[in-house]
Amino acid sequence: MKLATLRDGTRDGALVVVRRDGTAFTRAHDVARTLQAALDAWESTEPGLRALSERLDSGKIDSEPLDVSQLHAPLPRAYEWVDGSAYLNHVRLVRKARGAEPPPTLETDPLVYQGGSGVLLGPTEDLVLPDPAWGMDFESEIVVVLGDVPQGTNAADAGRYVRLLTQCNDVSLRNLIPAELAKSFGFFQSKPASAFGPFAVTPDELGPAWRDGRAHVRVRSTLNGRVVGDTHAGPEMHFSFFQLLEHVAKTRAFTAGTLLGSGTVSNEDRARGISCLAERRMIETIEQGNPTTPFMAVGDRIEIETFDASGNSVFGRISQAVRGAR
Amino acid sequence: MKLATLRDGTRDGALVVVRRDGTAFTRAHDVARTLQAALDAWESTEPGLRALSERLDSGKIDSEPLDVSQLHAPLPRAYEWVDGSAYLNHVRLVRKARGAEPPPTLETDPLVYQGGSGVLLGPTEDLVLPDPAWGMDFESEIVVVLGDVPQGTNAADAGRYVRLLTQCNDVSLRNLIPAELAKSFGFFQSKPASAFGPFAVTPDELGPAWRDGRAHVRVRSTLNGRVVGDTHAGPEMHFSFFQLLEHVAKTRAFTAGTLLGSGTVSNEDRARGISCLAERRMIETIEQGNPTTPFMAVGDRIEIETFDASGNSVFGRISQAVRGAR
Repeated sequence: MKLATLRDGTRDGALVVVRRDGTAFTRAHDVARTLQAALDAWESTEPGLRALSERLDSGKIDSEPLDVSQLHAPLPRAYEWVDGSAYLNHVRLVRKARGAEPPPTLETDPLVYQGGSGVLLGPTEDLVLPDPAWGMDFESEIVVVLGDVPQGTNAADAGRYVRLLTQCNDVSLRNLIPAELAKSFGFFQSKPASAFGPFAVTPDELGPAWRDGRAHVRVRSTLNGRVVGDTHAGPEMHFSFFQLLEHVAKTRAFTAGTLLGSGTVSNEDRARGISCLAERRMIETIEQGNPTTPFMAVGDRIEIETFDASGNSVFGRISQAVRGAR
Repeated sequence: MKLATLRDGTRDGALVVVRRDGTAFTRAHDVARTLQAALDAWESTEPGLRALSERLDSGKIDSEPLDVSQLHAPLPRAYEWVDGSAYLNHVRLVRKARGAEPPPTLETDPLVYQGGSGVLLGPTEDLVLPDPAWGMDFESEIVVVLGDVPQGTNAADAGRYVRLLTQCNDVSLRNLIPAELAKSFGFFQSKPASAFGPFAVTPDELGPAWRDGRAHVRVRSTLNGRVVGDTHAGPEMHFSFFQLLEHVAKTRAFTAGTLLGSGTVSNEDRARGISCLAERRMIETIEQGNPTTPFMAVGDRIEIETFDASGNSVFGRISQAVRGAR
């Protein structure tokens, strides 16, 4: 089942069920007005949404053509956005790029940060860059949407709390990071609003590609029309979503609709390319002595799309242009 | 105007207007079902809520007796919890306690962290401490509740976005902090759910005590019946709420209902006591060579209450017991 959120003038938009081919939808207001409302009462709303989905896919219900530019993020505002950094190749390269050591517990203790979640961008919303010196970068990630998670949940039980999966462009302002992390309180200004979607899908949509708490899919990042990365999200995710969930639930509970991210998908095989520019710049530094790829500038366009083993687009396409001040 | 959120079996509770003396309330469902709904449409809901408040205070409307134990946090779940650390005396003492230097930009660049906001505790909810070795501490803080804040808002314009004020117990697990901050991504496991309320009040309730983006009130912390701190929240707040807001809005916008905290209220005058145990332990270390005050343990009770210059309780009383695993 594929879900999305249609812009309708309200803060949280209107929940819609999307046809499997991603080109049409039907409104779900008779089951739940918003995705948050559906997640708040998943046991009672999921059957109704699945029934709509089946009737839509079999042509037994009227549908409307889907225009991705009319979509919000699946959750235009969420109660939490918790982002891991589970691809160790990414951690090693990015830390090297800013002259920092990976933590000694890199392989045993997951890295996660708490992101802002009150304003999340839709899949085609512009990235606003008032100051190019901030060094805007994209980060292509896989994200799970959680149900209510009790404190103390362990990895073995975590699967039952994964309601949906989606993808994300976790935007970073690279040149603001070193000074901010030096203050030791983590990211803040260096992490502006991130983009999600277009679609959030139930785990069964991935079939066997969803296993062991990892999404065994390919994440393709395209910058200004050129594919810069076609990375595998499965095998090199050192900590699974289940392990990340155990880590974050150690000292608190999470409410339905919490977003949990994988961190930038990253592969050791350089032929697969990159899911963020910081990695390419570090590789250039290693190979040539200095980075030659600039960060994103006004006029650039970043596209992110995830594919299953059959080459089907799983979540639709994020496509965002960078523009100057509003 | 004093507002609160009554437990009613729903996730977000029921918005109520509280009588000025804090002992009675009237339901606000005809104006807005929840505090979040009121904040989402503040221009249209504020007049109706104020009208209810006036009728309640003048006895022209039926009221029900208020039982604080029946209250949620004003926002039982919020879209963001952004916490500053604006009292430099606190920063200096706590960093000293864990052998870390304050950042060189301490006086010019505010410290803020992004906290979890999906599960917020009510004012009388227990603090759950499954492992006493975590080193549970309270932190007494002032909090503002924001309206929709555009990216790029500056301090001079920030006042218009402050809708409400409240107080908070920002719980910290002190012994988890050093290893977590060493990973450089900020707090996560070391910041479990915090408690807010009981009441959230409009700035005019503070009268002249709300000025220059600071709440010139006294915050009293009582541990197991003994007053351990009676600190002044105004003069030593180095960065005002307006300056904190400018800082956090530099690279992104905030949605209505975002919570922005002051950080632990702290005074250089040691006679005023402390608003967290970490400070007392550091003072003991400075004066005696080692800390003698333990962190909180199962059975302890922490109470936090804020008073204006006339000695009136502004936000009601937080009163939380520490208990073991659920």
